[in-house]
Amino acid sequence: MRILVLGGDGFCGWPTALHLSARGHEVAIVDNLSRRRIDEELGVQSLTPISDIETRVAAWQEVSGRIIEFIPLTVGKDFDGLLDILRTWRPDSVVHFAEQRAAPYSMKSAQHKRYTVDNNLNATNDVLAAIVESGLDIHLAHLGTMGVYGYGTAGASIPEGYLTVKVETPDGWVEREILYPANPGSIYHMTKTQDALLFQFYAKNDKLRITDLHQGIVWGCQTAETRMDERLINRFDYDGDYGTVLNRFLIQAAVGYPLTVHGTGGQTRAFINIQDTVRCIELALTHPPERGERVKVMNQMTECHRVRDLAALVAKLTDAEIAYLPNPRAEADENELAVENRRLLGYGLEPITLAEGLLLEATEIARRFASRADLSKIPCVSHWNAERAAAAGGAPPPSPKAVAAE
Amino acid sequence: MRILVLGGDGFCGWPTALHLSARGHEVAIVDNLSRRRIDEELGVQSLTPISDIETRVAAWQEVSGRIIEFIPLTVGKDFDGLLDILRTWRPDSVVHFAEQRAAPYSMKSAQHKRYTVDNNLNATNDVLAAIVESGLDIHLAHLGTMGVYGYGTAGASIPEGYLTVKVETPDGWVEREILYPANPGSIYHMTKTQDALLFQFYAKNDKLRITDLHQGIVWGCQTAETRMDERLINRFDYDGDYGTVLNRFLIQAAVGYPLTVHGTGGQTRAFINIQDTVRCIELALTHPPERGERVKVMNQMTECHRVRDLAALVAKLTDAEIAYLPNPRAEADENELAVENRRLLGYGLEPITLAEGLLLEATEIARRFASRADLSKIPCVSHWNAERAAAAGGAPPPSPKAVAAE
Repeated sequence: MRILVLGGDGFCGWPTALHLSARGHEVAIVDNLSRRRIDEELGVQSLTPISDIETRVAAWQEVSGRIIEFIPLTVGKDFDGLLDILRTWRPDSVVHFAEQRAAPYSMKSAQHKRYTVDNNLNATNDVLAAIVESGLDIHLAHLGTMGVYGYGTAGASIPEGYLTVKVETPDGWVEREILYPANPGSIYHMTKTQDALLFQFYAKNDKLRITDLHQGIVWGCQTAETRMDERLINRFDYDGDYGTVLNRFLIQAAVGYPLTVHGTGGQTRAFINIQDTVRCIELALTHPPERGERVKVMNQMTECHRVRDLAALVAKLTDAEIAYLPNPRAEADENELAVENRRLLGYGLEPITLAEGLLLEATEIARRFASRADLSKIPCVSHWNAERAAAAGGAPPPSPKAVAAE
Repeated sequence: MRILVLGGDGFCGWPTALHLSARGHEVAIVDNLSRRRIDEELGVQSLTPISDIETRVAAWQEVSGRIIEFIPLTVGKDFDGLLDILRTWRPDSVVHFAEQRAAPYSMKSAQHKRYTVDNNLNATNDVLAAIVESGLDIHLAHLGTMGVYGYGTAGASIPEGYLTVKVETPDGWVEREILYPANPGSIYHMTKTQDALLFQFYAKNDKLRITDLHQGIVWGCQTAETRMDERLINRFDYDGDYGTVLNRFLIQAAVGYPLTVHGTGGQTRAFINIQDTVRCIELALTHPPERGERVKVMNQMTECHRVRDLAALVAKLTDAEIAYLPNPRAEADENELAVENRRLLGYGLEPITLAEGLLLEATEIARRFASRADLSKIPCVSHWNAERAAAAGGAPPPSPKAVAAE
């Protein structure tokens, strides 16, 4: 299969590109390296020393004998360039990671809200419009988020994208299947619910084949491929904006920083290990929807945990302390969550679940590179609204400032 | 009340600004004149000879003694400028018309899809983010569209924004009220469904007071205020992109062009006269939601008609012929439509309904300026997808070309 990976230099994109290449697919990466520029803006760096993209693809060729082409381009801005790539490279599938993916970053200031909306929606629309314009029957697989559903609103297990409801008609209450009602918790999550409307429209109007993968919180860092050579190492974020909760606990434990639990830690979240992420994407690409079918939505997660239970588990393993802090997010203190993920399991996914052994492996990475961590970047300084900022000690919301240009 | 009208130079924006000013409110217009540049791009002009904005506001001052300030600015691009206006001008309400509003234009080519998504979503997000940043308790009233609902999907009357459904829970089927499931028919309509998610988020996260007015198809041209002086005349669009169906029939009849009915003409649509549009907006502004309340959605329409019935009515009045053409839109040939509009009626709206007398008045305008019409601009040349383009006679979809810069 010929696969174009948009955003293939990022935390999920890079190991996905390597995995697909290792599995025998022809892979090219399109990326504008915006994630690296955001590191500069935030004054932070990946805990792991990641190589530049040219070194990465050269190392991969050396190690595997396989070529991954890198094409620098801003998806969402350079439409003609993107269309030209589709027409000349002729992918069977496009994997779309080319979005700003951190909820706290999207809430830092008005400028960060603007950047996230502008970047994510124009990127998704450009990809869809370019596929239509190319006239090629390309399957698009997009990385969505479990956050499109909101948390625990239905009192039942969250289905895969669509919800059966009863609506009142002149003939009484009848069953209808609708796109799951969106209840996003941040500007970032909201853009993914807006993406879902783009997908619904293009699938209906132009019969595009589209898969939307609503992913849980990713933990872990390395995969079989990124471990093959130090130059292939994957990024590990630990800062208050881009670090995901479990990975943050691991580095906090490694450097002797109390584990930062927001609110009561009663938030239940869906999780997936990075090694399952890359497998799920290949499973999605090898099981595309038919032309004319509605958008295929799959929940890409393997288990649910409460944040305070994760903190307790890491504390037990590492003797770390736990600090309960005011929650910068506007969200419920406690929620239940159950999620259906039968489709990917049905295609053969064997989930890696949270076990002490795997946590220890990730802890190893955290310890090995602990000296690269800047402890001042650990706190979450992005507050969801004026009320949450005040609750955090009267600090005003950060004022607008220049953000990384795309 | 101090009211900022974003997009106040357009077809609905201009008569709204005049009406609000005539009713004693302090009004300022923010507009980048993009609609006039799109006329240039399409090689078409308003049937009525509209004055430039400077002449318009000067004439209004001469005629009424009241000042409407004009502030040139691109909403969605110049965020600092917009925030500065909010902080210094300190409006009580903002009316948001600053979006690309033609479905056929939004479907002309990939570049037109891109312009519509980029313009509309960044504009709406900028307005919301700027209100948050200003710290002012400003009420935002936005012009949505009946098209967010799709047409005739529920088999019941379309409610005002929210739908009561039953969802299955561990305790059985329970009632929930959800945002009406979106089923947009074009990229333009889709951006309005994405706007609705922006409103939902900002109302929840920042307690902004927001009203979303889902408007029917506007017909007519003049209002009490635009009739006061020739320099205040409102725009009248008749071309295949921006002309609305009933107004198009009237000009077609006036110039002896067969009335262009797409498909069977069995599409049922919601309508409103321009004079009711301006009244509804004042009613919305004087009945804002409370802080912390969810988004207030009202259906701004007064009656429903089938397109072929309108054609028959105009044909009877004017002896025009009717031409049935292939439908460039991907939509059902026939649909039923019933709409609830109790809220605006409850606030005192007395609807102007489609009567022969009013049609004749609009026909007068059409006849008076018929010599300005370019008949070659009447056909709809924008096709929704490759299939519809082929059905129209094998013509390929228009290729991408430069669109009006914002």
